[in-house]
Amino acid sequence: MSATIDSPALAPLHNFRVVLCQTSHPGNIGSAARAMKTMGLQHLYLVKPDSFPDAHATALATGAADLLEQAVVTETLAQALEGCAFAIGMSARKRGLSHELVNVRSAAHTAINVASTQTVALVFGTEMSGLSNAELDLCQLLAMIQANPAYSSLNLAAAVQIVCYELRMAALEKQNLQDDNLSPHAPPVYASIESVEGFYQHLQETLLHIGYLNPQAPKKLMERLRRIYARIRLEKEEVNLLRGILTLTVAPKKHDKY
Amino acid sequence: MSATIDSPALAPLHNFRVVLCQTSHPGNIGSAARAMKTMGLQHLYLVKPDSFPDAHATALATGAADLLEQAVVTETLAQALEGCAFAIGMSARKRGLSHELVNVRSAAHTAINVASTQTVALVFGTEMSGLSNAELDLCQLLAMIQANPAYSSLNLAAAVQIVCYELRMAALEKQNLQDDNLSPHAPPVYASIESVEGFYQHLQETLLHIGYLNPQAPKKLMERLRRIYARIRLEKEEVNLLRGILTLTVAPKKHDKY
Repeated sequence: MSATIDSPALAPLHNFRVVLCQTSHPGNIGSAARAMKTMGLQHLYLVKPDSFPDAHATALATGAADLLEQAVVTETLAQALEGCAFAIGMSARKRGLSHELVNVRSAAHTAINVASTQTVALVFGTEMSGLSNAELDLCQLLAMIQANPAYSSLNLAAAVQIVCYELRMAALEKQNLQDDNLSPHAPPVYASIESVEGFYQHLQETLLHIGYLNPQAPKKLMERLRRIYARIRLEKEEVNLLRGILTLTVAPKKHDKY
Repeated sequence: MSATIDSPALAPLHNFRVVLCQTSHPGNIGSAARAMKTMGLQHLYLVKPDSFPDAHATALATGAADLLEQAVVTETLAQALEGCAFAIGMSARKRGLSHELVNVRSAAHTAINVASTQTVALVFGTEMSGLSNAELDLCQLLAMIQANPAYSSLNLAAAVQIVCYELRMAALEKQNLQDDNLSPHAPPVYASIESVEGFYQHLQETLLHIGYLNPQAPKKLMERLRRIYARIRLEKEEVNLLRGILTLTVAPKKHDKY
C-alpha cells in the first residue's frame, strides 16, 4: 500500500541533483547525504568543497556513504548544472532580486513535474552567506523555507532534509500515494451497526440496573454516551469485550485466587 | 506575506512540547533545539537524557541555547506529559499495534487545532530503538515520516526538524483558510493525560472488583481497553461521565421510582 522505492511515482526523485556550493564543514556534507537518502534522492554534487572526501563526512553519512562515493565534485556551479533543465536556488531570506520566490512546498510540486522527464538541480549556498548573486543568476526559481523570522538559521543538512522531504511528499501526492492513514494492518473489521446498537441497548439496561440512568430523568445520558462511542468506530471484537464488562457489572464473579 | 512570530496564527506553536526520551547523544539535543526554534517552537522536555546539560548540546544549539536553558528534565515520560491534553508519538516504522498511525502532515493539522487551546506533546524515542511500547501507551496518536523504506534512518534532529516544519506550515495554512471558514466551532476541551490515566486506573480497579480482570491472567485486557479509549480522544466532561458509571458499578444505587 505505501509506496516503495520502486514505485513509478517515485521515479522522478532519481532525476534530482542536490548541489552544495562551497560547503565549509565536511560533516554537513555527510549529514546532507543521509538526509537525501532517507527521502530517496541519490545524486550529490559538490562545488568547491573546503574538504572532500573527509572522514567526518563519511562518519555523519552513516548508511548513506554510497552517495558520497558517487558524489561529483566540480570547480564551478555552472559545471554542476550541466545537463539540468531546471535549477532551484534555496534562499534563507527574501532577497532584493527579481527572481520568482516561492515556498518550498510550492517549488517541490513544480520540480516534481519537471523531473518526470528531465533533470532538476536544488542549489544550496554556503553555511554562512547562502548563494551569491552570480550563483542565483544560474537558477530559474528561488525557494524559501518559511522559517521563524526571529531565528531562521537552519543547519544546511536540515534545509536539505526539508527540501527532500517536500519532494518526496509531492511525488507521493501526485500519485495519490500519500497515505494519511498509515496503519499497518488490513483495514479493521468494524462492528456492524446492529451489533453496536445491541451494545447500546445492553449499556442502557446495565445503567438502569446500577442506578446511573434514572428513567425519570434520563438527561440525554444515552445520547452523550453514543457520542463517545461513535467516535471510536468500534471493531467487532471490541464490542464483545465491552459487552463482557456489562455482563459482569450486573452479575460480578470472583476469581478463586483474588 | 510571511507571518511573523507575533502573528496570531502562529500562537498555537507556543502550546507544543517536544519531548525527547532517553537521548544518547547530547549533540542531538542541541540540534533538536535549533530545529525547534527555527520553526517557532520553544518548550523542550528531556526524559532521562544520558548527559544534560552538556557542552556538546550547547555548541550545536547555536542561537537556540535559550531553549536548552529552559528545558525541563524529568525521570519519566508521564511526568513530561503532565498538563498535556494530547500526545503524539513519532514512529520510524509501522508497528504491530492498533494505535492509529498517520503521516506527519496529517498529524500536524490535527495537532494545530488542539494546540489552539491546549498543550500538545510530540514524543520522540531513543536514537537506536525509538519509543517503547509502554511509552507509546501514553500517546493517543502515532505519526510517521513517509521516508524511503530502503533507508528510513533519519537523524533525531532531522525528524524533529520535519515535524516542527509541518506544524508551522499547518499553522500558516490554517490562517489562509480561516477567512473562508465562516462557522468555526469552538475546539473541544480534551481531558488532560493525567485525568485519562485516572480513568484507566479507576477502570482497572472496577474490572478487578467485578471479576472481569483476573489478576492471575490479565491477557492484555487493559492494553486492549486503552486502545479503544485512546481512539476517542476523550473530552473532560466525558471522563467524568465514564467515571460516574464506574463508581456506581462498584456501589449501585436504586432510584425510588424504579
